[in-house]
Amino acid sequence: MASSQGGIFISFEGIDGAGKSTQVRLLSDHLAKLGREIVQTREPGGAPGAEDIRRLLVEGEPDRWSPETEILLFTAARRDHLERKIRPALAQGKVVISDRFADSTRVYQGATRGDLRALVDDIHDRVIGVEPDLTLILDMDPNEALSRGLARQSGEDRFEDFGLGFQEKLRAGFLALAKKNPARCVVIDAGRPPEAIAADIAAAVDKRLP
Amino acid sequence: MASSQGGIFISFEGIDGAGKSTQVRLLSDHLAKLGREIVQTREPGGAPGAEDIRRLLVEGEPDRWSPETEILLFTAARRDHLERKIRPALAQGKVVISDRFADSTRVYQGATRGDLRALVDDIHDRVIGVEPDLTLILDMDPNEALSRGLARQSGEDRFEDFGLGFQEKLRAGFLALAKKNPARCVVIDAGRPPEAIAADIAAAVDKRLP
Repeated sequence: MASSQGGIFISFEGIDGAGKSTQVRLLSDHLAKLGREIVQTREPGGAPGAEDIRRLLVEGEPDRWSPETEILLFTAARRDHLERKIRPALAQGKVVISDRFADSTRVYQGATRGDLRALVDDIHDRVIGVEPDLTLILDMDPNEALSRGLARQSGEDRFEDFGLGFQEKLRAGFLALAKKNPARCVVIDAGRPPEAIAADIAAAVDKRLP
Repeated sequence: MASSQGGIFISFEGIDGAGKSTQVRLLSDHLAKLGREIVQTREPGGAPGAEDIRRLLVEGEPDRWSPETEILLFTAARRDHLERKIRPALAQGKVVISDRFADSTRVYQGATRGDLRALVDDIHDRVIGVEPDLTLILDMDPNEALSRGLARQSGEDRFEDFGLGFQEKLRAGFLALAKKNPARCVVIDAGRPPEAIAADIAAAVDKRLP
């Protein structure tokens, strides 16, 4: 959804603990050095209303919401984020870097708990309807990622609580999405030192800059 | 959606200030005297998660959410309410009386702010898919209803804040719904003493009891 003014929308995806927030920061530093205006953001959340919805989603017991309710809440937060933060920034020619976007809902809700992918896709088409220009999928062994994710102890552990089998399904889901969307998605081996990962990401981004 | 065990699902609809909560209480008293087990509930809310979503919806500025985000949040709350409270109660043969249900979303979001009715209907069909057995529409002059609604000062004034023109559109929206769904909806003149209204409601309910 790059705008005519040169804005570009980049999302990071992958399982919890794969190092997305570190890489969002390193990519922002890289682009700032190139003179780009950056908007760092995240999902669920990224705008005041969407952050209020985030709290409902990431706190509490794993069975606090059914998968269907969860899909509606994630999509509500995404719509708010898109309207209030992403679209305005792109219209100003900025680079928007989001820690997660719609692919996370496709994988977390659509590929892991029941046959809800059609519902995820339908609601996305009705109220979101856009994709990032580039999606960087940080791929790593769920064993290692899970231990990192839980080590954060952020109080936002609702999804990590689903356990290792869940993380393995997520990884497979992200890799399947990348295979289906090769023009948009780049898979990055995230089981390496942060600088090596950041170099691959910078290379992938640089050739897509308007 | 009456169950085989004799449960029945009744919703009250109408503009704010029309006296819905009083009539929910009076109908519950009437049915309790007939030996029925009653579950009184309301929307948005009615279950712990749905009540958390309610707070996002009813507090804050009128433009806190776009109509699209609002539709997703109302539907998320409704799905939770249906799963956690309405369906279990009906399965136990209880009478569920809800202060508002899906008709409110059809009228508030679908009939008053832009051409969003198709979106409301699509999302309802995908994730809710049921209607009450009986919907009682409390109809009254918006001038009178508005003054009652604002007089409550509950801190939940986000929708009342849209003003009198908005209330007039709502009234017309509810009456149009009643006309389209004559088997399910009964319009009650709510500009009369509470006892007279309650008598009409009791008569409408009694002839539909399983």
